[in-house]
Amino acid sequence: MASVTGYVRRARPTHLRQFKELLRIPSVSTDSRHAGDVRRAAEWVRRRLKSAGCTKSELHETPKHPIVYGEWLGAPGAPTMLVYGHYDVQPVDPLELWSTPPFEPVVRDGKIFARGASDNKGQFLAHVNALEAHLQSHGGCPVNLKFLIEGEEEIGSPNLDAFIARNRKRLACDVAVVSDSAMFAKGLPAICYGLRGLAYLEVQVRGTDRDLHSGSFGGAVINPANALVSLLASLKDNRGRVAVPGFYERVRRLRPAERKAFARLPHSDTRYKRSIGAPELYGEAGYTTLERIWTRPTLDINGIWGGFTGEGAKTVIPAEAHAKISMRLVPDQTPKEIARKVRAHFRKTVPRSVRISVRELHGGAAWVTSTDQPALRAAERALERAFGRKPVLVREGGSIPIVADLDRRLKVPMVLMGLGLNDDNLHAPDEKMELDNFYRGIAASAFLMEELAVVRR
Amino acid sequence: MASVTGYVRRARPTHLRQFKELLRIPSVSTDSRHAGDVRRAAEWVRRRLKSAGCTKSELHETPKHPIVYGEWLGAPGAPTMLVYGHYDVQPVDPLELWSTPPFEPVVRDGKIFARGASDNKGQFLAHVNALEAHLQSHGGCPVNLKFLIEGEEEIGSPNLDAFIARNRKRLACDVAVVSDSAMFAKGLPAICYGLRGLAYLEVQVRGTDRDLHSGSFGGAVINPANALVSLLASLKDNRGRVAVPGFYERVRRLRPAERKAFARLPHSDTRYKRSIGAPELYGEAGYTTLERIWTRPTLDINGIWGGFTGEGAKTVIPAEAHAKISMRLVPDQTPKEIARKVRAHFRKTVPRSVRISVRELHGGAAWVTSTDQPALRAAERALERAFGRKPVLVREGGSIPIVADLDRRLKVPMVLMGLGLNDDNLHAPDEKMELDNFYRGIAASAFLMEELAVVRR
Repeated sequence: MASVTGYVRRARPTHLRQFKELLRIPSVSTDSRHAGDVRRAAEWVRRRLKSAGCTKSELHETPKHPIVYGEWLGAPGAPTMLVYGHYDVQPVDPLELWSTPPFEPVVRDGKIFARGASDNKGQFLAHVNALEAHLQSHGGCPVNLKFLIEGEEEIGSPNLDAFIARNRKRLACDVAVVSDSAMFAKGLPAICYGLRGLAYLEVQVRGTDRDLHSGSFGGAVINPANALVSLLASLKDNRGRVAVPGFYERVRRLRPAERKAFARLPHSDTRYKRSIGAPELYGEAGYTTLERIWTRPTLDINGIWGGFTGEGAKTVIPAEAHAKISMRLVPDQTPKEIARKVRAHFRKTVPRSVRISVRELHGGAAWVTSTDQPALRAAERALERAFGRKPVLVREGGSIPIVADLDRRLKVPMVLMGLGLNDDNLHAPDEKMELDNFYRGIAASAFLMEELAVVRR
Repeated sequence: MASVTGYVRRARPTHLRQFKELLRIPSVSTDSRHAGDVRRAAEWVRRRLKSAGCTKSELHETPKHPIVYGEWLGAPGAPTMLVYGHYDVQPVDPLELWSTPPFEPVVRDGKIFARGASDNKGQFLAHVNALEAHLQSHGGCPVNLKFLIEGEEEIGSPNLDAFIARNRKRLACDVAVVSDSAMFAKGLPAICYGLRGLAYLEVQVRGTDRDLHSGSFGGAVINPANALVSLLASLKDNRGRVAVPGFYERVRRLRPAERKAFARLPHSDTRYKRSIGAPELYGEAGYTTLERIWTRPTLDINGIWGGFTGEGAKTVIPAEAHAKISMRLVPDQTPKEIARKVRAHFRKTVPRSVRISVRELHGGAAWVTSTDQPALRAAERALERAFGRKPVLVREGGSIPIVADLDRRLKVPMVLMGLGLNDDNLHAPDEKMELDNFYRGIAASAFLMEELAVVRR
């Protein structure tokens, strides 16, 4: 296999150039003004799949952003590995906090900075590049490859599950690989066997039908911003627990073996705190930091706005106030049921003198799988060869709703091998990816293809 | 006096044209980008005072926006009436809710629509026009006139009190007149003998030093937006009372005679509610609507913002969240003491894992005066002559901090005769003034000058 690793090394400048090309396309799926850019990114990915060696590479239309599908099936009899990824990215605001423009990729200090670098453009490209490495270095690949790269992950993959359901045959495979999570730390790879789910809501509270002078009317009418903060404050108690009735009803208890395994991981609260610039950590009593983010549900306000937010002092009672809130879910909570419970809580709590409306923006189920599967062993060996260190088994606080869907639809082992780092600033200013992880990730994927070819199925 | 009313009638087109000229100047004092416009407005007022007949008309510089002073002292031995007003205006956002552009005055249905129409350009111009009416119709005025027109009322008059203190001789007078409040209803004039005070604060809550992905970190760190809503919710109980310890300590009890007088006023909660488009009224238990807005302190969130507020769903834990809050005060609360109590409450309530900062944006004392004064009787007669109906005695929920300052510094009777209406949309989109009130206001001011000339001092 010297030839594959040699190719990966020699191809670095080309792979970096291509990476940057894709990063320059502002494929923000959440913002309709970027619809054209999202399509440009899809077309770029389709061409790249073809140039990497896929014998089929197609755009599949959806009601919103296209799905890219590619395949190389030149290893009859060998297993088939499906790679899932997404070419869409998060919005960039607050734009003023970026050190360099988010869609002008820049390499500083071995890191490439751009929106989408780690989430998820660099991570899925690693697998595309690995196929190319096999094909270019010895004319074939040890496994068959299928690529399913969507453009709606950041808006909750509203059209992917239907696509998978309609294309079960096309997507048939023996293992599905997703690189959209993080290594445990720099130099320490990880395999993820659990993800939290998500229920994301937008709340609007209306009082009067126009803004009012807070002097002339203050005290005689309800202020929807005051009503909103009371409603939102009622969602959590002061010990970090969600106070929505029934919220914890379906939460699986953490197994003692899992707690022990987490406790053995090289985690330090002090380092963690420092790495994110937090004065103190804060969370549900009775759980460690890793337990809190990996195995416990939570609720966050992601955005809030209402009234006068400019310079100076405007004495107004706003007509309405808004918030975006989301809950991270764990097995066996479901987004639908949780959204229903929050709505019921709001209905019971909201004062009669305001009108409230709640919109479900998106949701996804939590996911957890067994750690005892041959495909995970293969991934362990591949990651160890590429990074020189045995990977740890982890869960992840974020959500990749499609993982639960793929699992349910395809019924094959899911391998989540993240190539990102926790300080990659996903969804935040100055998102980056370590180039070392990008290049080692290509090698790891190439090794995984080899390891999977010899796994006893 | 037929000549004066005749002049007022004949001058309507000219007075309307001048009014529009001033309304076209976007003198938003709170926004530094409008500093040049604020000065243009000051110069316009100075020129208008001169053209109306003032023998002196000057701009006095302050650290921010100039004060305009004018005088006509051609009635030796007669009393001197000082008119206070302000040429600055509130910001205009939300701009999209205006039916026509805020600085392009338009007359529809007998109302002139523009930011500043009622608050306060139309109201102080009435007095300027009244001086002109006397001088033009019979070559003199029954009283001496002084005009003090500032450009910082909407930012809390930070420089006016010092100016008054330095210019006590220049401003010496027998009565001070302010038209910056509302009539009780259309056709029913009012004299205001009490104003609420104001303490306006801006709060910032910071968590981590950057935005974080709410999946990767949610549950392990505090969310400053969640912390902020809890802090803000703790400021009021669910029965409309402010919950800051000691908040009501210095609040004067409402006198039974006053309650009775309020109860006799032609107020209807149903009409009131309908006029502002509120589903229900809401306020402190045990008080009527008029008592709540005129005599009870309250607290409102005027603005709140943090995190992602764009289209769609961004899963972020914001690094910081902000709010503007203000409290309306009543005698004998003071803005300083109230701000101190809120700070103390925040300090006690805020979780250790966030950093909070509180800035005092502006404040002003509440004011109340005796209803039994000859100057008020003179104003009653003048208003009755102009509007054909005896005015009622009212208090006002809004704040004109300078009224308390003028009272304290000048030690003369203060006459607050508002020419606005409660549905004039002060501080809101589609601000307007009834032209009938503008024209009758000019007459009322001219009559007041006469009535004051014969008051036994």
